[in-house]
Amino acid sequence: MISLDALNQLGETEFVRHLGNIYEHTPWAAERTYKARPFASIASLLDAFAQIVKESGDTEKLALIKNHPELADKLARAGDLTEESQREQRGAGLDQLSGCEFDIFSRMNQAYRDKFAFPFIICVRRHTKDSILAAVQRRLEHGREAEIETALVEIDRIAALRLEALVEPDGTVKLDGRLSTHVLDTHHGGPAVGVAISLYELSRLGTPRLITRGITNVDGRTDAALMAGRPLPIGRYEICFEMGPYFAARGIAATDMPFLDSVPVRFGIADPEAHYHVPLLVTPWSYTTYRGS
Amino acid sequence: MISLDALNQLGETEFVRHLGNIYEHTPWAAERTYKARPFASIASLLDAFAQIVKESGDTEKLALIKNHPELADKLARAGDLTEESQREQRGAGLDQLSGCEFDIFSRMNQAYRDKFAFPFIICVRRHTKDSILAAVQRRLEHGREAEIETALVEIDRIAALRLEALVEPDGTVKLDGRLSTHVLDTHHGGPAVGVAISLYELSRLGTPRLITRGITNVDGRTDAALMAGRPLPIGRYEICFEMGPYFAARGIAATDMPFLDSVPVRFGIADPEAHYHVPLLVTPWSYTTYRGS
Amino acid sequence: MISLDALNQLGETEFVRHLGNIYEHTPWAAERTYKARPFASIASLLDAFAQIVKESGDTEKLALIKNHPELADKLARAGDLTEESQREQRGAGLDQLSGCEFDIFSRMNQAYRDKFAFPFIICVRRHTKDSILAAVQRRLEHGREAEIETALVEIDRIAALRLEALVEPDGTVKLDGRLSTHVLDTHHGGPAVGVAISLYELSRLGTPRLITRGITNVDGRTDAALMAGRPLPIGRYEICFEMGPYFAARGIAATDMPFLDSVPVRFGIADPEAHYHVPLLVTPWSYTTYRGS
Amino acid sequence: MISLDALNQLGETEFVRHLGNIYEHTPWAAERTYKARPFASIASLLDAFAQIVKESGDTEKLALIKNHPELADKLARAGDLTEESQREQRGAGLDQLSGCEFDIFSRMNQAYRDKFAFPFIICVRRHTKDSILAAVQRRLEHGREAEIETALVEIDRIAALRLEALVEPDGTVKLDGRLSTHVLDTHHGGPAVGVAISLYELSRLGTPRLITRGITNVDGRTDAALMAGRPLPIGRYEICFEMGPYFAARGIAATDMPFLDSVPVRFGIADPEAHYHVPLLVTPWSYTTYRGS
Repeated sequence: MISLDALNQLGETEFVRHLGNIYEHTPWAAERTYKARPFASIASLLDAFAQIVKESGDTEKLALIKNHPELADKLARAGDLTEESQREQRGAGLDQLSGCEFDIFSRMNQAYRDKFAFPFIICVRRHTKDSILAAVQRRLEHGREAEIETALVEIDRIAALRLEALVEPDGTVKLDGRLSTHVLDTHHGGPAVGVAISLYELSRLGTPRLITRGITNVDGRTDAALMAGRPLPIGRYEICFEMGPYFAARGIAATDMPFLDSVPVRFGIADPEAHYHVPLLVTPWSYTTYRGS
Repeated sequence: MISLDALNQLGETEFVRHLGNIYEHTPWAAERTYKARPFASIASLLDAFAQIVKESGDTEKLALIKNHPELADKLARAGDLTEESQREQRGAGLDQLSGCEFDIFSRMNQAYRDKFAFPFIICVRRHTKDSILAAVQRRLEHGREAEIETALVEIDRIAALRLEALVEPDGTVKLDGRLSTHVLDTHHGGPAVGVAISLYELSRLGTPRLITRGITNVDGRTDAALMAGRPLPIGRYEICFEMGPYFAARGIAATDMPFLDSVPVRFGIADPEAHYHVPLLVTPWSYTTYRGS
Repeated sequence: MISLDALNQLGETEFVRHLGNIYEHTPWAAERTYKARPFASIASLLDAFAQIVKESGDTEKLALIKNHPELADKLARAGDLTEESQREQRGAGLDQLSGCEFDIFSRMNQAYRDKFAFPFIICVRRHTKDSILAAVQRRLEHGREAEIETALVEIDRIAALRLEALVEPDGTVKLDGRLSTHVLDTHHGGPAVGVAISLYELSRLGTPRLITRGITNVDGRTDAALMAGRPLPIGRYEICFEMGPYFAARGIAATDMPFLDSVPVRFGIADPEAHYHVPLLVTPWSYTTYRGS
Repeated sequence: MISLDALNQLGETEFVRHLGNIYEHTPWAAERTYKARPFASIASLLDAFAQIVKESGDTEKLALIKNHPELADKLARAGDLTEESQREQRGAGLDQLSGCEFDIFSRMNQAYRDKFAFPFIICVRRHTKDSILAAVQRRLEHGREAEIETALVEIDRIAALRLEALVEPDGTVKLDGRLSTHVLDTHHGGPAVGVAISLYELSRLGTPRLITRGITNVDGRTDAALMAGRPLPIGRYEICFEMGPYFAARGIAATDMPFLDSVPVRFGIADPEAHYHVPLLVTPWSYTTYRGS
């Protein structure tokens, strides 16, 4: 990691060596941005990059777009992928598609390439499999100009996340979201301690994917946020709160068949950089959940 | 259907012809009960039957128990099942077990028979596959005397439900439960109209089984109760409320990825003869559910 | 009470004798409406009356309006009030104004009369003291034509309620609302039985006025609705649920200073002919209330 | 304020000058405690004081108790009160009793003194007028030995709070509680910003006493806790949330008579050193409140 100050003092070659791939295979973006030095903040640096790309010619833009790999095209072209691309696609689970899922992705990608003659580009770190598929389907309806615009916006987002991994943060750019929960036992009027919690990513294509497990602490929260330190992938999720064992351990309504046992809360995340707080107020006979803050 | 009055006036032969099989293959129960005529109510009639069985000798009791078929033993002995037994087992889905489920049931039945030397008896109309399995496991721990007692209680329950199908009700016996719901839209302050609802029976063994679907009417309720007119099978259930389309149709929070879309409410039913009211108070950002009344 | 059929068969003199005062001191309304006989329903009869008044001349309309007494002018003119007017004003508590309230009403009435040269008319059975004052203040801003219209609408409403007291209902006119409640104890998962409930009408002018008290029955409801069988007066209300004694009697959280004791729920009623259901879902540590259905 | 270190190094005279009045008019408590120096923590220092008093003779204990002024005896003996006592009684509003309240306090004090021959002592900073009265009534039922014990416990509490004002805190003693709130608008799914909030102390004797007002910030909270940095006086409170103007400003359900306008939440505080979080989840048609964490 380099500081912004140090970055501002690099010579052009070094600058390009550091940042030449935040726009995929496109060192000219860094070369031209270098001239706008010094940068007052990381936000300004990213703006400068985006501006350079925006002002480049149509041929250059198209070349930039075409430099990107197909999504989920891992088997065929793994050798060609930049390290950054590999890491990003892995994050969304695109390296673990089932045969059926892979077919759907391939067909979608092909349809997109057939229509626009360039690959479908999306900042995968902000997405789940489901939201990527939804995006392809929606964007297939667009015209070519609109799609070039959209692709460039996504490329800027990818660049921002790649830059984040290289330069020390200065607080001017917010790229991460946060998913947290809290279990409040309104039967005894305090935090519910020791409740097992599981977070799943849901998918229309396949089975739920376990993302993380946790146990509520003395404050009724998990020690760490359920997701944090990264964009929250746009998608549908389910938190499962194991209330049955919790209440049984307290001798409440302890039957073989309690009214509430495993309590699922299903919700969508639409804004990757936001804070989603999804608490549960619960008794053995009722619960309330909501998007909190 | 015959009225209690008419029943009271039947001769013994006719009485036994009508009621001889409410205790499986055991006409002597009806023959002896006949002597206690006339019956002031259906409740008294059932009490009389239960009393006769209770006062019978150990050999008779054991014979009565052994007259019952194995659960889920449909393939092997379908020809021998009384019509009543067939209908009852069908209701709990025991005629549609997957291979794997059938194996488990067979193994459990065998373990039970090995231990007690009589078949496992349970009033299946008050149960789901899950609760039957839970019951076998629990009852395998019992001693033989306790199990004879339990089997007779279950046989009385079976008899009560069989009698219900034969004699006009007089309100003295409650054999049915009721599951209802209500969707209240606290975003606009009125019933949520036109919400699609599905009720599933959950199972630890297999996939959820759809029981019924409905649409909320102008009062936010389904026109008919989700389950009614019969005992509610002890088990775990999930109601799915399709709130996404409902709010989208009202132009509220209509995005590709709404916070709430399909809202699952999962709960257990432990008391087959009770009323379970499971309502939903919902906005696009929150909901509350509870066991209501 | 007379039936609509009987009414349809009356001669003119009798018809006017029955209905001559549903429009205050204005027998011609009944005389002219008589010609439109027979009436298919009570709704048609009321429409016919309203139509006659609407089609009358400006002088007649003004005379009709001026036939009405000042609100709360009880002391000065009690002798002149029709029995109907007396009863109506009593219902809204206008016969029990404190000195200070009476002053405010008098001043408002005077300001209204000074501006429009006719008395302020409102269907008091649909109002509380507070909403009457709010209405005078709002209507003082109107022009004269608009106020004549508004006065006639209110006179029609008064007539409908007076007619309701005279003719057997046929279900074509809805003049009553309903306020109900329900207390659900989500600590033990059933209706809260034996909770003392008080309903107050709130007032910006004075202290809360007790309207009714009740105790929840085995279903967690009051045996009778809190208000019913009449229009719900537009206004602000508070239901007080005495949860402290209820939970203390169950040995729960029984301290000198429970978290929840007397739980107030304050709400406005804007629609006199609607059903307001205001339930409470409550534990010793939480509650939820809402406009239900 | 002096640090514990500095205190540990004082000579006896200085030590007594600093701490001689944390037990009212009782320098011997400080003189004897001085011998136990040095103190590892403030908690140890307080324990040492309490131990000295506990080990003192019956006559000394009684003298210590009798050194305390009558509660609310301000008019008659104001000249004699220590500064500490004055400040403490002022905090609970005991210097602002109405004539009627003063009468009740005087009568209670007199009854207590008549029975026990010493004044009623309570750590007033942990109480409201209501809870003080409740305590006198309860303690009048006790025997004399129990009351001497109770009085000494209260005197230790008074001493701890007096010491807190003199010595720099070291985190070993928790003497303060915290009351906070949070308003979440589940109609739009985020914090409710700009809601006016008032906190009142309720009283069975008189009218509610305004304690503080606040406005919710961008996070739906008040910038400062509603009460903090001191014991929360045991008593009954009401928070009033002005939701009517909030929703009206957002164009929601904006009528003259909204369903929810001023939303009162009434609750008891029983534990002065605890955190009470009392949030509101609210739409124009519903709300939920609870003891949170």
